[in-house]
Amino acid sequence: MVSMNYYSLVLVVVALVWALAAVAGDPDILGDFIVPAPMVGMPPTNITSDFFTYTDFLAAKEYMPWPPQYFIVIKANMEVFPALNGQSVSYDMLVFPSRYVNPPHTHQRAAELLFVQSGALSVGFVDTAGKLYTQVLVAGDIFVFPKGLVHYQYNQGPNPATAFSAFGSAAPGTVNVPASVFGTGIDDAVLAKSFKTDFWTVQKLKAALTPPPK
Amino acid sequence: MVSMNYYSLVLVVVALVWALAAVAGDPDILGDFIVPAPMVGMPPTNITSDFFTYTDFLAAKEYMPWPPQYFIVIKANMEVFPALNGQSVSYDMLVFPSRYVNPPHTHQRAAELLFVQSGALSVGFVDTAGKLYTQVLVAGDIFVFPKGLVHYQYNQGPNPATAFSAFGSAAPGTVNVPASVFGTGIDDAVLAKSFKTDFWTVQKLKAALTPPPK
Amino acid sequence: MVSMNYYSLVLVVVALVWALAAVAGDPDILGDFIVPAPMVGMPPTNITSDFFTYTDFLAAKEYMPWPPQYFIVIKANMEVFPALNGQSVSYDMLVFPSRYVNPPHTHQRAAELLFVQSGALSVGFVDTAGKLYTQVLVAGDIFVFPKGLVHYQYNQGPNPATAFSAFGSAAPGTVNVPASVFGTGIDDAVLAKSFKTDFWTVQKLKAALTPPPK
Amino acid sequence: MVSMNYYSLVLVVVALVWALAAVAGDPDILGDFIVPAPMVGMPPTNITSDFFTYTDFLAAKEYMPWPPQYFIVIKANMEVFPALNGQSVSYDMLVFPSRYVNPPHTHQRAAELLFVQSGALSVGFVDTAGKLYTQVLVAGDIFVFPKGLVHYQYNQGPNPATAFSAFGSAAPGTVNVPASVFGTGIDDAVLAKSFKTDFWTVQKLKAALTPPPK
Amino acid sequence: MVSMNYYSLVLVVVALVWALAAVAGDPDILGDFIVPAPMVGMPPTNITSDFFTYTDFLAAKEYMPWPPQYFIVIKANMEVFPALNGQSVSYDMLVFPSRYVNPPHTHQRAAELLFVQSGALSVGFVDTAGKLYTQVLVAGDIFVFPKGLVHYQYNQGPNPATAFSAFGSAAPGTVNVPASVFGTGIDDAVLAKSFKTDFWTVQKLKAALTPPPK
Amino acid sequence: MVSMNYYSLVLVVVALVWALAAVAGDPDILGDFIVPAPMVGMPPTNITSDFFTYTDFLAAKEYMPWPPQYFIVIKANMEVFPALNGQSVSYDMLVFPSRYVNPPHTHQRAAELLFVQSGALSVGFVDTAGKLYTQVLVAGDIFVFPKGLVHYQYNQGPNPATAFSAFGSAAPGTVNVPASVFGTGIDDAVLAKSFKTDFWTVQKLKAALTPPPK
Repeated sequence: MVSMNYYSLVLVVVALVWALAAVAGDPDILGDFIVPAPMVGMPPTNITSDFFTYTDFLAAKEYMPWPPQYFIVIKANMEVFPALNGQSVSYDMLVFPSRYVNPPHTHQRAAELLFVQSGALSVGFVDTAGKLYTQVLVAGDIFVFPKGLVHYQYNQGPNPATAFSAFGSAAPGTVNVPASVFGTGIDDAVLAKSFKTDFWTVQKLKAALTPPPK
Repeated sequence: MVSMNYYSLVLVVVALVWALAAVAGDPDILGDFIVPAPMVGMPPTNITSDFFTYTDFLAAKEYMPWPPQYFIVIKANMEVFPALNGQSVSYDMLVFPSRYVNPPHTHQRAAELLFVQSGALSVGFVDTAGKLYTQVLVAGDIFVFPKGLVHYQYNQGPNPATAFSAFGSAAPGTVNVPASVFGTGIDDAVLAKSFKTDFWTVQKLKAALTPPPK
Repeated sequence: MVSMNYYSLVLVVVALVWALAAVAGDPDILGDFIVPAPMVGMPPTNITSDFFTYTDFLAAKEYMPWPPQYFIVIKANMEVFPALNGQSVSYDMLVFPSRYVNPPHTHQRAAELLFVQSGALSVGFVDTAGKLYTQVLVAGDIFVFPKGLVHYQYNQGPNPATAFSAFGSAAPGTVNVPASVFGTGIDDAVLAKSFKTDFWTVQKLKAALTPPPK
Repeated sequence: MVSMNYYSLVLVVVALVWALAAVAGDPDILGDFIVPAPMVGMPPTNITSDFFTYTDFLAAKEYMPWPPQYFIVIKANMEVFPALNGQSVSYDMLVFPSRYVNPPHTHQRAAELLFVQSGALSVGFVDTAGKLYTQVLVAGDIFVFPKGLVHYQYNQGPNPATAFSAFGSAAPGTVNVPASVFGTGIDDAVLAKSFKTDFWTVQKLKAALTPPPK
Repeated sequence: MVSMNYYSLVLVVVALVWALAAVAGDPDILGDFIVPAPMVGMPPTNITSDFFTYTDFLAAKEYMPWPPQYFIVIKANMEVFPALNGQSVSYDMLVFPSRYVNPPHTHQRAAELLFVQSGALSVGFVDTAGKLYTQVLVAGDIFVFPKGLVHYQYNQGPNPATAFSAFGSAAPGTVNVPASVFGTGIDDAVLAKSFKTDFWTVQKLKAALTPPPK
Repeated sequence: MVSMNYYSLVLVVVALVWALAAVAGDPDILGDFIVPAPMVGMPPTNITSDFFTYTDFLAAKEYMPWPPQYFIVIKANMEVFPALNGQSVSYDMLVFPSRYVNPPHTHQRAAELLFVQSGALSVGFVDTAGKLYTQVLVAGDIFVFPKGLVHYQYNQGPNPATAFSAFGSAAPGTVNVPASVFGTGIDDAVLAKSFKTDFWTVQKLKAALTPPPK
């Protein structure tokens, strides 16, 4: 049973609404940072410097087998690091085993600024005029993938590669092209016509890219 | 007479352009509308109501063979209709012959609000969690494709279909997925690994989707 | 009586607050789309493709007497079509009987991009320098009314006219000039001085434009 | 010597201007302030603190007859005070003789925050639901007119009134309702139907509000 | 005990969430103004014109001893004047006794447009290139402090000075430099190295600027 | 030959630049990326993938003496890496010798997301309520400094430290607090009053922080 007083509930809801209303007026946030929702009926959250610190990259590095066995993306975005909410910035840490690829994808809400920390990466993006830009990056290089365009990274070499990507949004979003197109059940006729191919090829691609039922 | 050196002029113009490239003022335009560049040394352009009128949809309808033979998109965006610059809105007119598809694509800068004027369309989009939303639309229906997500339209029926799409940007941008991925020369290894398929399939798709050299 | 558990309520409110907080950080939404508020204590709303579909234009066409008897505006904005929230686009369908006018008005939050579907319309807008731009549009024509300026449409001809207007906002807003000025009780002296006229004329206009008490 | 053809230069400049018209960078300016265009072929403008200072309010006060004879608006916006470009703020100084009105108008790009410095003002605005909000303000009072809504100020009393209005845009824009509607040549039939009145009344209002030919 | 009906609570929360969701989609608010949170289970707040009126400047003037004894800032921002929420504008009233200073500070979210109402002020700001701009302002002068830069105002003269500052944000924010740097407990070594001075000077400044424990 | 008068050309270019200075279009760029100004009279710049690649971090690492002798910041922002223009993201590489500090500063246009690559850093920021948040970061840790607030980093340990900072703007801007306040010639009286100290202390700080004349 809800045992809190009626007026307390009113006050709590009003306080929440005011807090939120203040977040939306001007395009950016209207305070220093966005405090996570205080617990109803409990004392206000005590925000400390730990709220602004994120340690999962460190943890990942310590517990990751080396050389890595799979392509791994560790995200530091507002979903896992709430202090980023309203600050318009986030990171990804990318770990590529030899010969692994980060498949063609887009980010809807941000450009990607990739810094290669170790190893080497072959990267590319396609502009809306259909021109492909490719580059071979070595450790220390930076490359920018413009906002919303299809791009990929590929570790062609024999050694692992690690990279950091910065985004100008706390929630850049990712649309994985192979999975979106061939892994979601889009009608075979649509795909065959779109890719100017036959049903057999479409079904082969779908079989490879459709995630198994859980 | 202009007596300045050629290279000085180049430097001055480049400096001006760079200075401006960093300029945005308020987020929106700071006047009623954006006047196209007046001609150098000529009297200022005389803006009339024709500047705000666009007649290519009408022209297209009158001269288009019926039933249509190809999938056609006629755009009313700021590239062809300069008055839209700064007004954050544009239209596409879409004409689908029977059995034709508008292949999976994204718009980087706007959601698409599609109105079916005649015929019927099977449409779909995929959200970033990999869920496919499909719908069969008839004349009079409206459907919204959220910003940045992969979507398609398909005229499954025996008759032509026409539709209008509104966008919340004067330059929504389009990334055609099959053409971007298989029609731009991305390395076969990247594509084979990304689509979890063999080189033969990649080459077959590239052959179908790569535009012929001009 | 509220029979839900205290901790369930806490979780529900926290979830709501987090969902909303994520909507406001960056200028645009930070997800694919905005899900309507899940019901308290019930399973999360099951979003289907119907959520992205709007059928009131179709319904209106089927049940509207023809020829139409009144000037009719059917809106497809976020108030009636919640999926538009955060997508920055909306539609109006306008139906004009012969000799009917859509009175001078402004939209505070968007330009209007009008497409004439059938019939003909005389349209106009006034820029902030006091210059009137008028145009006669026929079926197939497009016209843009710049953001925030006073504009009108008028069906001068003997036949009905239908048009669609796209807006670069999910909630463009409308300020109807005659109703705002003469139908809201503004003091007679203010209006007489503003319109440089006499009290009798003001009172006559107010009588015509003030809505009857409900 | 510049040896390029005149028409080539025209084309180059036009191309640059069109390219730039589409350029916005980040939503706000990307520097401390926007420097006015340096003169071609001259040394860069020497920006001093005078660039950030505006003295026309002071000048107006010194040379204005008192009591004032007309309603006067002195603007401190980016057109007359270029340092405001990109700073999203501006002022108006308003001087009302006794019994004078600032007629119903809207600002497309900003709310207005009015501070009454001396005298008293009757003010009002109408929301989009058609509700009128009126207030009598005395010296020292502040009132906010929300963005884009029709509003007016009226000095009902026997003494002059002065006020300052702040706007959250360097170029808020003004649409004067009586002048826009009755002073620009909109067709009599459109106005008669819109205001539900007769041609005679329309012509009388037009005669009063149409500026004399220059 | 919460005695409201389960379905009422659902409706109230859903209404609140919808109200808020509408605030965040487009960069600006999507309504005329933001209504403060209606009380849960009570009739909707009756918004009157008093909601848009702010009288604390008037009250301050009436009750302030004259000449003033301290530097005083009275704010009219959205924290104390909720109608400003979403309207992107606010005011400060500044009262300077003779020889008083408003110490170096920044506003994170807005430029400041200062109008000197009475007396005179010496003002200055520093751009990011380290150039100081100073000006002596007299009553009637306006000065703009660009967004985010360090600035101060100083009343050098024998008489009090009053000024009004407009901001292009309803919540401009203030970072007081002396208090932030020397009044918050930053490590002595950090401060000594940053200011290229000795521990004794740092401790002296900290002693002067650290607020006493409450 | 260009036969127009020199002053006419100046006027035309100035007019164009002023017209453009007010132009912002949609809040973001309206193309894939911003191409640097093509040379006047030359073929359009041939944009290659090198335009999107930045190698100064790599170069810096190779040529920097180790251990480092000074605190070094290498920037990858739009000033030195033009492809970032319009992409709303940038990087800084920070190299700290043992016992070196990055003095208290603010960024006007972005939050800072710091990743410690090697060594350890003591960091802190002060919110607008005057609360100091401090943290000791080790290699692999991430910390966010909210937008516009005063912050510092300090390498307390015996070894060098390197870090990368991502910003959600291509031009975040930096206001160095000690240099802005004590190194720019602000009047001694203003500083003495602001820091509640004596002229001798102000002059000592100014002597230490004022850059030598060039």
